[in-house]
Amino acid sequence: MCRPRERRDQMSEHIGVGVVGLGYWGPNLLRVLTELPGVQVRAICDLDAERLNRFAQRHPSVRATSRLDDLLEDPAIAAIVIATPVFSHYEIAGRCLDAGKHTFVEKPLAASGEHARDLVRRAAEQDLRLMCGHVFLYSPPVRAIADLLARKGLGEIYFISSSRVNLGLHQRDVSVIWDLGPHDFSILLSWLGESPTSVRAIGRDSIVSGLPDVAFIDLAFASGVIAHVELSWLSPSKLRRTVIVGSERMIVYEDGGIEPLRIFDHGVVYRDPETFGEFHLSYRTGDIVSPKLDTAEPIALELEDFFGLIRRGRSRRRCARPTS
Amino acid sequence: MCRPRERRDQMSEHIGVGVVGLGYWGPNLLRVLTELPGVQVRAICDLDAERLNRFAQRHPSVRATSRLDDLLEDPAIAAIVIATPVFSHYEIAGRCLDAGKHTFVEKPLAASGEHARDLVRRAAEQDLRLMCGHVFLYSPPVRAIADLLARKGLGEIYFISSSRVNLGLHQRDVSVIWDLGPHDFSILLSWLGESPTSVRAIGRDSIVSGLPDVAFIDLAFASGVIAHVELSWLSPSKLRRTVIVGSERMIVYEDGGIEPLRIFDHGVVYRDPETFGEFHLSYRTGDIVSPKLDTAEPIALELEDFFGLIRRGRSRRRCARPTS
Amino acid sequence: MCRPRERRDQMSEHIGVGVVGLGYWGPNLLRVLTELPGVQVRAICDLDAERLNRFAQRHPSVRATSRLDDLLEDPAIAAIVIATPVFSHYEIAGRCLDAGKHTFVEKPLAASGEHARDLVRRAAEQDLRLMCGHVFLYSPPVRAIADLLARKGLGEIYFISSSRVNLGLHQRDVSVIWDLGPHDFSILLSWLGESPTSVRAIGRDSIVSGLPDVAFIDLAFASGVIAHVELSWLSPSKLRRTVIVGSERMIVYEDGGIEPLRIFDHGVVYRDPETFGEFHLSYRTGDIVSPKLDTAEPIALELEDFFGLIRRGRSRRRCARPTS
Amino acid sequence: MCRPRERRDQMSEHIGVGVVGLGYWGPNLLRVLTELPGVQVRAICDLDAERLNRFAQRHPSVRATSRLDDLLEDPAIAAIVIATPVFSHYEIAGRCLDAGKHTFVEKPLAASGEHARDLVRRAAEQDLRLMCGHVFLYSPPVRAIADLLARKGLGEIYFISSSRVNLGLHQRDVSVIWDLGPHDFSILLSWLGESPTSVRAIGRDSIVSGLPDVAFIDLAFASGVIAHVELSWLSPSKLRRTVIVGSERMIVYEDGGIEPLRIFDHGVVYRDPETFGEFHLSYRTGDIVSPKLDTAEPIALELEDFFGLIRRGRSRRRCARPTS
Repeated sequence: MCRPRERRDQMSEHIGVGVVGLGYWGPNLLRVLTELPGVQVRAICDLDAERLNRFAQRHPSVRATSRLDDLLEDPAIAAIVIATPVFSHYEIAGRCLDAGKHTFVEKPLAASGEHARDLVRRAAEQDLRLMCGHVFLYSPPVRAIADLLARKGLGEIYFISSSRVNLGLHQRDVSVIWDLGPHDFSILLSWLGESPTSVRAIGRDSIVSGLPDVAFIDLAFASGVIAHVELSWLSPSKLRRTVIVGSERMIVYEDGGIEPLRIFDHGVVYRDPETFGEFHLSYRTGDIVSPKLDTAEPIALELEDFFGLIRRGRSRRRCARPTS
Repeated sequence: MCRPRERRDQMSEHIGVGVVGLGYWGPNLLRVLTELPGVQVRAICDLDAERLNRFAQRHPSVRATSRLDDLLEDPAIAAIVIATPVFSHYEIAGRCLDAGKHTFVEKPLAASGEHARDLVRRAAEQDLRLMCGHVFLYSPPVRAIADLLARKGLGEIYFISSSRVNLGLHQRDVSVIWDLGPHDFSILLSWLGESPTSVRAIGRDSIVSGLPDVAFIDLAFASGVIAHVELSWLSPSKLRRTVIVGSERMIVYEDGGIEPLRIFDHGVVYRDPETFGEFHLSYRTGDIVSPKLDTAEPIALELEDFFGLIRRGRSRRRCARPTS
Repeated sequence: MCRPRERRDQMSEHIGVGVVGLGYWGPNLLRVLTELPGVQVRAICDLDAERLNRFAQRHPSVRATSRLDDLLEDPAIAAIVIATPVFSHYEIAGRCLDAGKHTFVEKPLAASGEHARDLVRRAAEQDLRLMCGHVFLYSPPVRAIADLLARKGLGEIYFISSSRVNLGLHQRDVSVIWDLGPHDFSILLSWLGESPTSVRAIGRDSIVSGLPDVAFIDLAFASGVIAHVELSWLSPSKLRRTVIVGSERMIVYEDGGIEPLRIFDHGVVYRDPETFGEFHLSYRTGDIVSPKLDTAEPIALELEDFFGLIRRGRSRRRCARPTS
Repeated sequence: MCRPRERRDQMSEHIGVGVVGLGYWGPNLLRVLTELPGVQVRAICDLDAERLNRFAQRHPSVRATSRLDDLLEDPAIAAIVIATPVFSHYEIAGRCLDAGKHTFVEKPLAASGEHARDLVRRAAEQDLRLMCGHVFLYSPPVRAIADLLARKGLGEIYFISSSRVNLGLHQRDVSVIWDLGPHDFSILLSWLGESPTSVRAIGRDSIVSGLPDVAFIDLAFASGVIAHVELSWLSPSKLRRTVIVGSERMIVYEDGGIEPLRIFDHGVVYRDPETFGEFHLSYRTGDIVSPKLDTAEPIALELEDFFGLIRRGRSRRRCARPTS
């Protein structure tokens, strides 16, 4: 098996890439990969012949195949990008890692925490990069908030409250928690840089028996932060709204809104909070700012991160760890 | 001791009333009582001489006293309205009931569930009316929703999600749950007509040690309804918003908003939800209506309810039962 | 030259159509025409060979040509749809009418009122249908309002106020009035069914000398209705909002909004308005309704109207007359 | 008659003031005057005995009279504040000026431009201060905008568009232009520091014959700025919104809104705007800021301005000149 260090030397100019799965999300990844500097798409793979043929015509210099082994056996392919159905992630990603390929898997990494942890372990053993695609982490407002938090711009973070609801598509085989929750959880863990010490949820399968379509989830963290996440496919109007409350500032992040990020220079001024009955509190309200956000494409940033991680052995942004 | 039936005969024309406590809320109750048909305020009572004097001047025909016994011993007073500090509710209401007076107590009924249940028991033993003043239950949008729910206008209720947050006044001696929560809990119990089978909360004392200023509370009911209540004194902007999702319609209630009540004729249309993997769901969106609401004053409705309850022995609206 | 009546017999099953101009809007018309029942696209025409070739490949059974005469000389083509640059409308539409073809021209009909009137006259002389494409007239909210007005649902219309502003694309060769104004004017004339008796405007060429980028336009109508239209490419945020005030109801129409149409059951109740100094006015506020709107595609409705007009000799909706 | 200079010496410590008119607005002025440093209310005057008596009881040390002459003849009264009905402004203010009193008149200064100009002339002749109370000029957002404009913070001002509409109280004897317009006109003239070169309006008396209840007003200024003002008592919802567009920044001011002032760091970047057909424009969008505004009471600032003007002979803020 070729060793990562040798591979890195070989691909001094371009990293050869294979793409597996051309259904809903795969074509987006393929489009960005073909335009990414330092990367060469060498092969695409899908079981659906018609779909494979369509993309083969657009990319005549790329090998099109329905056999994953064709990618795994190609020594010029150093990395594989997977966007297949969730149930197949574990097996396909495992075979890629076993073949010594760096591996990118669209979220979720696997259909269970056990499988996800096994993949992480196998990647570590072989010193291969394994990255799960949480594209929201690369969206401009989420990154701007991450930068602000890293600079302690909110002071101490007290709590986070998030709603991700709409009158939306029921998924056929996963609950609203698996459908919408990964966005919030990946974002929360990325911002806070810690895993929750407790997670508690209540939900209801209002429409389809056994398939929760609404859930209220509470998280507590060792730092003292508490978080609440409301998820629903059954709400009168669409809302993707996260409020972060800190001692110095507060943030409202509305994904898809005209002003997706608003920073409130508000806080509490207090004296002697321990002497009960004698404390004096007052509220400080300052300016409210909707900062201009950059317009870089999240998928491109995400894949640049993956390839940077391959080249330099580390990521600018950490991939959110799988939770059980 | 005079019996309720006898008292009702005596006051064929007017019910004599005493008001105890003229601090923050008492003057509102006094103002409405003086204008209420069929009611005569006979005495007011407060320990603060200056305050008592001020209201005595405005109401020269009403007896002003700092002794509660002056009210309890007056046979022409059939009902007493209490708006004193919370810690005194149990003792004062108990003395009123012992003296055979119908009793109205501003929320909360007492400072503990045990005390509240004891008052309920004593009122029942003497066949006296005991009512706790949850004025929100008489606000036009809450009543309109109650009427709609009573007519099954939402179909089956799936869940309720409520946020009551602001950058608001920290109370000195009660948590945000005791300060803001009674509004939501009294409203929820009134609408649903059932008590929760489980209640679970997470909160944080961000500013003052031991005094939670943010809380996320989940409730489950035997009917299958789940509810979530978010309470906070630490939020960038004021929000009093409750969403009720049913099988036929959905409601958004924003207290204090320009359109406090919006009814969404939205729902889910489905077929054969039990045959997993074969169900077909589609979303139905119809009109959205902001109904015109009546403009009756909630306090007047609330007190009319109390006196109607005395006269006819029952309430148009049930008083929310105290929860432990 | 074949006469309209004869042509109508010939095309008992399908009306043969030619499309001229495949730039920005033409492809949308072509796409809808190929799917419209009772219509057969026989030829497409564009001076740009590369562009023509691209659409020829997608529509192999359609003749592709850069010569307009190829369409005019084809007896199987009864109608021509024109989406070329504005300066060419008058000449191309004139040649189509001279060749005995029913003619559809994307807005504006011509670059001057004189030219527009000349085309209308020539179409009338030959009993040919000439229609100008004001697609907004077929959008669901505009149609819903037209239906409501036709039923006198607003009572007497008092006034209309419209804002169509954004931080938007300066056009290179037309002012904001010619760019955005046709939407408002076509809609207003269609709703009111009358032409203004006076039009007055003030504007400013803030950025490019000679090219107004903001304008305030007042219109008065013989019925007494007054209207105001604000147009701007220089506004902090996008707004497409029209308010219609009537004696019985009021309407707010926000194009592109989540609730594009809101109907306010509000009005004024008054007594004896002529006896000055003695009148009594009060305001009536009732429900506010956001009706569910149908989702038919406006372009398809527009073209169906054009072909229905050819078949039956009249339009379901009148084409807005050109204004000088 | 005593001369202003002498008076100024006399009142080295306090300026003696009389208040005429205690109806709707007068009590507000009286309340602020009694708390204003350096000012002593010596007399109040109203024709309504009951009303006069009520305020006399609250202010036992102030002379209460129904005779204006009692104020005019008092040498210790240097300034008179008038809040009587509009039709009486000209006569009362004229008598005050003739008696050598500095004079403050609630808006409008008089019922006609001719009368207003005559008062201005008479005040100037006697070197007396005459101020018209446009309290909106002292509201925090209007002042913050004035400061920003004075610093050229918006670059060149292109245009201003204002809407002041509601389903509101029809006045019995003045049109919507005289009722709501003074707010906008006083603010516009104050901000721009110039009078319009042309004013044009269209309106309609929808409800009461002869009394316009909706108006659209255009203004042009020598600097090139154009402005539009929409006024209406007949609108589905209340709106007080002014948009100011400049070359560097844009402002949205919503009176009474949660964020009354929002500053958009937006503009247009262009090259060679004179070479037609070759210019290149692009839009620049930066941060949006809702600045925290100060909370000083507008009436107090306004009256401080009046008394500062008396003491120092000039105003911090110019009184808006009357328009004919």
